[in-house]
Amino acid sequence: MGAQSRQWTAALVVIGDEILSGRTQDKNIGQVALWLNEQGIRLAEVRVVPDAIGRIADTVNELRIAHDYLFTTGGIGPTHDDITVDAIASAFGVPVTVHPEARKILEDYYRNRPGGLTQARLRMARVPEGAELIVNATSGAPGVKIGNVYILAGVPSIAASMLEALIGKLEGGRPMVSVTVGARAAESDVADLLRETEAANPGVAIGSYPFFKDGRYGANFVIRSEDGELAQRTGDVLASKLREAGYDPVEGGI
Amino acid sequence: MGAQSRQWTAALVVIGDEILSGRTQDKNIGQVALWLNEQGIRLAEVRVVPDAIGRIADTVNELRIAHDYLFTTGGIGPTHDDITVDAIASAFGVPVTVHPEARKILEDYYRNRPGGLTQARLRMARVPEGAELIVNATSGAPGVKIGNVYILAGVPSIAASMLEALIGKLEGGRPMVSVTVGARAAESDVADLLRETEAANPGVAIGSYPFFKDGRYGANFVIRSEDGELAQRTGDVLASKLREAGYDPVEGGI
Repeated sequence: MGAQSRQWTAALVVIGDEILSGRTQDKNIGQVALWLNEQGIRLAEVRVVPDAIGRIADTVNELRIAHDYLFTTGGIGPTHDDITVDAIASAFGVPVTVHPEARKILEDYYRNRPGGLTQARLRMARVPEGAELIVNATSGAPGVKIGNVYILAGVPSIAASMLEALIGKLEGGRPMVSVTVGARAAESDVADLLRETEAANPGVAIGSYPFFKDGRYGANFVIRSEDGELAQRTGDVLASKLREAGYDPVEGGI
Repeated sequence: MGAQSRQWTAALVVIGDEILSGRTQDKNIGQVALWLNEQGIRLAEVRVVPDAIGRIADTVNELRIAHDYLFTTGGIGPTHDDITVDAIASAFGVPVTVHPEARKILEDYYRNRPGGLTQARLRMARVPEGAELIVNATSGAPGVKIGNVYILAGVPSIAASMLEALIGKLEGGRPMVSVTVGARAAESDVADLLRETEAANPGVAIGSYPFFKDGRYGANFVIRSEDGELAQRTGDVLASKLREAGYDPVEGGI
């Protein structure tokens, strides 16, 4: 790696019984991870926790101290199982209040919709005292920021919309760069070659991801570094070593 | 809930930089969750951690004590980034050894395959001392069990094969039963009805999962209980309340 730079890290708490029961396939881990990479922040850990106030609060308090940023997804809708705001208020030791700007957003959003702004919908204007809002261009009800904690929706398209609104607003370092080289090699046949290449290039991490495609085995080798040139150079070295070893490497992966 | 039964819980540790970087979409959380439900064991929490021995070991030690069972996925292949066995041996304070039966399985598996049993492939016979094997009918290299910790592959089809081999081998309670009722209702319009139905039926939890499909909003309401009859009865009550409220509920969900 070139000049050492401060590394910014984030954690993500995925809140929801539906993920732990297997009913719903999580899609937020991947999109939050990719978004953070672009901001130069590394997703360092993820926890999936049930809809239980104490568990959410404890997890939030553990992780918001351990990382520069903490994101949560899920549990900010209008129904009784949406308890994330209450849990995070409890984690910060502050009361829950109705945010006047959030109330106004919801009033505008529901003005010409059937039913108008019901008590249930007004739940979505509740925030921990002292929090700011995160714009949600998709469905009105905003996300919430308090301290270094960013509270996003669970529905992936709405979470994406909130991430969009946060682009460029978080201080980060250099984005992590990935270079992928694929080969129709059993990963066990090139294990030494991979280990040696990683060891010879401090500042890169090489991951090996096997697959079975079109009836044949192969693997993609992913070189990651905050130094884009180093990642590319190491990818070139790896590709030429694979070529020497009799494989036909595919830059960009298979 | 009828007679109270002991509740069995498990945690899952997903090991892998590729999940945290967003490169790979995790598919193991969902399949482990569904499999555990069938065994009468509840998935109580999930953590995704990077390929770092200390982090894996600390997480394993925290969670194996807190739950009846702990599962891990990822990091048991033949390459340098496969460090799960080392991390878990370190968590248990035991050395890593080559398991004779695992070596034999690999010898047989690779006998007629190009390259045979290389040093890299033999890595997959390494286990924490005192561990047992979990059969892998898909690709030879076995999973590993030590204490209450079950070490599975990261490739979802191989993890599935290992889960298959474990069916009926873990002591559990009653499976969690889910009954789903869907309606073309904005969840905020039925929030009171949901909360009241849950409150009137102790032993069930009702989750509300909104969607946007075919150009219209709606939500699925999932009633969960270890008491299957209670779940069904509550689902019927909820459906008839939704019908009274002017919706056209769909049993089984939309």
